[in-house]
Amino acid sequence: MKKIKNGIILAGGDSDRFWPLKDKILTMYLGKPFISFLTEKLSLYCDQIFIVTNDQNKTQIQNATHNSYSYVVQNRRNCGMAGAVLSCSGMVSGETLIVNASDYFNFEIIRNIIEKSQDKSIEAILIAKKVQSYFAGGYLTIDGNTVISIIEKPLPQDRPSDLVNLVIDYYKDFDQFLFYIKKTQTQNDDWFEKGLNLMIKERRVEWIQYTDYWYALKYPWNILPLMKFFLNQIQASVIDSNLVSISPTAVVSENVIIGKGVTIGHCSKISGPCYIGENTIIGDYALIRESHIGSNCLIGSSTEVARSYIGDQVSLHRNYIGDSILSDNVLMGAGAVTANFRFDEKEISSCVSKKMVNSNMRKLGSIIGKKTKIGVNSTLFPGVKIGGNSLVGPGEKVRKDLPDNALFFDGKLKQI
Amino acid sequence: MKKIKNGIILAGGDSDRFWPLKDKILTMYLGKPFISFLTEKLSLYCDQIFIVTNDQNKTQIQNATHNSYSYVVQNRRNCGMAGAVLSCSGMVSGETLIVNASDYFNFEIIRNIIEKSQDKSIEAILIAKKVQSYFAGGYLTIDGNTVISIIEKPLPQDRPSDLVNLVIDYYKDFDQFLFYIKKTQTQNDDWFEKGLNLMIKERRVEWIQYTDYWYALKYPWNILPLMKFFLNQIQASVIDSNLVSISPTAVVSENVIIGKGVTIGHCSKISGPCYIGENTIIGDYALIRESHIGSNCLIGSSTEVARSYIGDQVSLHRNYIGDSILSDNVLMGAGAVTANFRFDEKEISSCVSKKMVNSNMRKLGSIIGKKTKIGVNSTLFPGVKIGGNSLVGPGEKVRKDLPDNALFFDGKLKQI
Amino acid sequence: MKKIKNGIILAGGDSDRFWPLKDKILTMYLGKPFISFLTEKLSLYCDQIFIVTNDQNKTQIQNATHNSYSYVVQNRRNCGMAGAVLSCSGMVSGETLIVNASDYFNFEIIRNIIEKSQDKSIEAILIAKKVQSYFAGGYLTIDGNTVISIIEKPLPQDRPSDLVNLVIDYYKDFDQFLFYIKKTQTQNDDWFEKGLNLMIKERRVEWIQYTDYWYALKYPWNILPLMKFFLNQIQASVIDSNLVSISPTAVVSENVIIGKGVTIGHCSKISGPCYIGENTIIGDYALIRESHIGSNCLIGSSTEVARSYIGDQVSLHRNYIGDSILSDNVLMGAGAVTANFRFDEKEISSCVSKKMVNSNMRKLGSIIGKKTKIGVNSTLFPGVKIGGNSLVGPGEKVRKDLPDNALFFDGKLKQI
Repeated sequence: MKKIKNGIILAGGDSDRFWPLKDKILTMYLGKPFISFLTEKLSLYCDQIFIVTNDQNKTQIQNATHNSYSYVVQNRRNCGMAGAVLSCSGMVSGETLIVNASDYFNFEIIRNIIEKSQDKSIEAILIAKKVQSYFAGGYLTIDGNTVISIIEKPLPQDRPSDLVNLVIDYYKDFDQFLFYIKKTQTQNDDWFEKGLNLMIKERRVEWIQYTDYWYALKYPWNILPLMKFFLNQIQASVIDSNLVSISPTAVVSENVIIGKGVTIGHCSKISGPCYIGENTIIGDYALIRESHIGSNCLIGSSTEVARSYIGDQVSLHRNYIGDSILSDNVLMGAGAVTANFRFDEKEISSCVSKKMVNSNMRKLGSIIGKKTKIGVNSTLFPGVKIGGNSLVGPGEKVRKDLPDNALFFDGKLKQI
Repeated sequence: MKKIKNGIILAGGDSDRFWPLKDKILTMYLGKPFISFLTEKLSLYCDQIFIVTNDQNKTQIQNATHNSYSYVVQNRRNCGMAGAVLSCSGMVSGETLIVNASDYFNFEIIRNIIEKSQDKSIEAILIAKKVQSYFAGGYLTIDGNTVISIIEKPLPQDRPSDLVNLVIDYYKDFDQFLFYIKKTQTQNDDWFEKGLNLMIKERRVEWIQYTDYWYALKYPWNILPLMKFFLNQIQASVIDSNLVSISPTAVVSENVIIGKGVTIGHCSKISGPCYIGENTIIGDYALIRESHIGSNCLIGSSTEVARSYIGDQVSLHRNYIGDSILSDNVLMGAGAVTANFRFDEKEISSCVSKKMVNSNMRKLGSIIGKKTKIGVNSTLFPGVKIGGNSLVGPGEKVRKDLPDNALFFDGKLKQI
Repeated sequence: MKKIKNGIILAGGDSDRFWPLKDKILTMYLGKPFISFLTEKLSLYCDQIFIVTNDQNKTQIQNATHNSYSYVVQNRRNCGMAGAVLSCSGMVSGETLIVNASDYFNFEIIRNIIEKSQDKSIEAILIAKKVQSYFAGGYLTIDGNTVISIIEKPLPQDRPSDLVNLVIDYYKDFDQFLFYIKKTQTQNDDWFEKGLNLMIKERRVEWIQYTDYWYALKYPWNILPLMKFFLNQIQASVIDSNLVSISPTAVVSENVIIGKGVTIGHCSKISGPCYIGENTIIGDYALIRESHIGSNCLIGSSTEVARSYIGDQVSLHRNYIGDSILSDNVLMGAGAVTANFRFDEKEISSCVSKKMVNSNMRKLGSIIGKKTKIGVNSTLFPGVKIGGNSLVGPGEKVRKDLPDNALFFDGKLKQI
């Protein structure tokens, strides 16, 4: 199969809405950083890969991808994707595919793009997905295979269709696309879409419908369904019995990956799909269900981890961790519990950038930043987010989000 | 053996003192409603059975007893048992045995009644039990086999004997007994006993001593000894291994009944006598001791249930439930605990109708009404009663009874 | 080997700094009172043993040592070791070795003393240990083998050497030593050292360096390293399988001593070195690690005891007890937890006689006096000491030490 000349991964955006988590592009799944799943897949369909980073994450992304690709630092950061593609000006030319580093989808759709691109009269191809309920994205107006216009974030009642544009854009001539971007100079967030719209009006742009899975990493809780997707890829267990120590009284189900150096304690149970990173200790009577656990963790005795993402070097002890995300080096004392559903069974909302956002999840526990420590017998309310480097005292009840560097004792918040 | 013509079960009384529990007559034991134990036993000794109900429980009682008996609705409800027997006027006549639906005893005593009733000069036979300590009931004055009088609820120092009258009354001619009831018209609660006393004075009434077990369902905690009685009837295990799923690492003792569709998790332990209703899930590391658990429950991982009665559809998770009664659809979050004894080792008292009542139990946990939810890491003090449809927040301490429809957060009580 | 004529064990001192623990000399290790380890060892090197007691502990010490030695009651109690040795005046004479009942060390050092004592020109022999960091003791000034002076508790900057004098003193003529004590009459705590210093100046006193283990029972937490020492003596398991009941699903490691009548529950794990006293019940899912547990305890289900000393008749249930000391008859309700390290990872300090004392331990849980009861779901902060006969309510957080006979409910302290 013919490949597309260039593939651009947009990885330079801000992640404010992802707080208290960081580095969503570098989050590890099944032992690999998220970005490497994108590069591996994209390499199947593109000859050369460009990763647009920002100043902060450039080195990390280079390391995570073994410096195997071309890296572009995005200099303009307040003008969305337009800034990102403009940074590639002069470096990228000709046939180009653009994808977003915050999205994960079935890359096989690119086969369809390549096929359609054989018709040289088509100058751009967009991908759209039918949505049932309202989604804040760009909606396409179409006429058969042809895109008539794209309307960015219309009011729900003003949607021209139920087709939401995904960031999997094909341009026959990258410079031509840049021409329209530059022509539509604006300082707004929707510069990219305005440029694209101008091109749609003057050039032949077609679209392809996408019907498969789609994961967008917009809010921190979006990690959980993506984690579930990756865990579900585990078909059979991967356990090198020479390199792991599993108590004869422990039970390990069929679909788990257990890294080397892992110890699994007396009477413990690993109920897959699960991933357990290298050198992690699963204590006695621990129960791990459908969870992704990093390396060098101590999942202490009588802890239950269910449907949760646990980073590296996390210490737990006699906890219940349900539908939660714990960053690296989080510590929880004995008896601390994450509550993970509301009594009224409503979907759980969370405060993001001072607005309440519905997570659309009925079960959501805690989301905790790096190096935070939670005291024994403390109680975290459903959907609570706690910043990094924070301390929650023993026996506290945490009802609301706590910022980074918080000291929370006796129900009172101080900054460290 | 000759049978008595009529058997009346008095099931129309109020159950205010049974709050927060309901339907004490319909409470399920070993898979059957309590009333059906009475009807089955009474059918052995009586030709026809009349059940006196009230407006509220009539349909439920009919359903629970498969509409196999005669049902009488008690219309006068503020005059105790007199109202109940007067409701049977015109429907019941001749030899009649009257028992109370709130009491459970060894029905074989009725053999002795039938034997004594061969002496046609005896017009009523009462049953009495010797009591050690004071009990608020009717006391008999006797002369040999003959009852001289009955004194209702005397002061402790005024008791004429240590013989308490039980509600297992035989009347040779029910209409004759009704004659004395009607003759003694009063509006008080002790109308029945006054009528009986009048009959005793004018007719030959004998008595028989009862020395076996006696369970009176007056207060909600009375369910626990009755449950224990029924559990002790389980002699050998009843488990259909084709219809239940028991983990190979679980341990199940000799005397348990496990309903079909039950799942018993990894390393769990069922220490009999126990009853576990259909389709209930016993999670991993769960410990069930001498308890009665309904159907469709989720007894989540690491929960311990000891000497407790658990209704249907109850959800538990990492709890300790000791000497407690949980109604249908109760939910308790991870780490919530029932305290079940006082530090001073005194017997536990409970507020009933605004008066403190000694339960005479040194171990008594919580008594919780239907559909109530208890938050994670919350603490219920010994003997606490919580009404139905209530919510207790995470990490709360519940020191006192909470009413129905209570919202208890931050130590403050609101009504829903 | 020639023995020393007299061995004196000083066991009459006060133990104020040991609160809330009592009877440090009588604390049981491996089934025997601490004092009996001293007498057994000392008997190997001394012909006759004198134990200096006080009024309070005399009978207990006599019982604990089967009345096999000579007992001296110390009458003067406010003048330290001088008072103790003066109490032996008239009873003890000639060659004498003096050791302290609060210290434990390798008694084989006494061989070296006996050897050196062959040189009859030496009139006393002291033992000293090199210390790295400052220790509040008596420091020796030496010249070769000869002791020049002893300086009691100098300021850190004034230490004449890094040689701390241990209480393993040999005197060729006990009366001669008493002569110097009496000559230096003072009412201070350092009378003994002043007398010794006077003797050093006038007589030939030599010293021997000691390089092996040394345990001083000064503060209550000192029990933990001593416990560890004794546990480490257990080389192989001592379990009479006819006299103990171990569930087939339980796991017991190699180096444990299990007393007769002990029951070990379903799925429990004993991870040695451990000592478990007679008739103790280890419940289901209990995890005992490197701990010393007394007799007749109920270590209830799902309890974890790690690196802790537990007295007799202690009741636990679903607790985490880490790096803690629980006296006889302590009771902890379900879910109560001992926090055992600080979030800042600093060494844990404790208030002793109104001064903060650094325990030099990074992990230290709770120290609890006899008969104290701790409510369900309560939280004890790191290093907290709780007096005997106290009650801590359910769900309480105990941040600071509580006195004897404390009532601690709702965060408020009352006295019983």
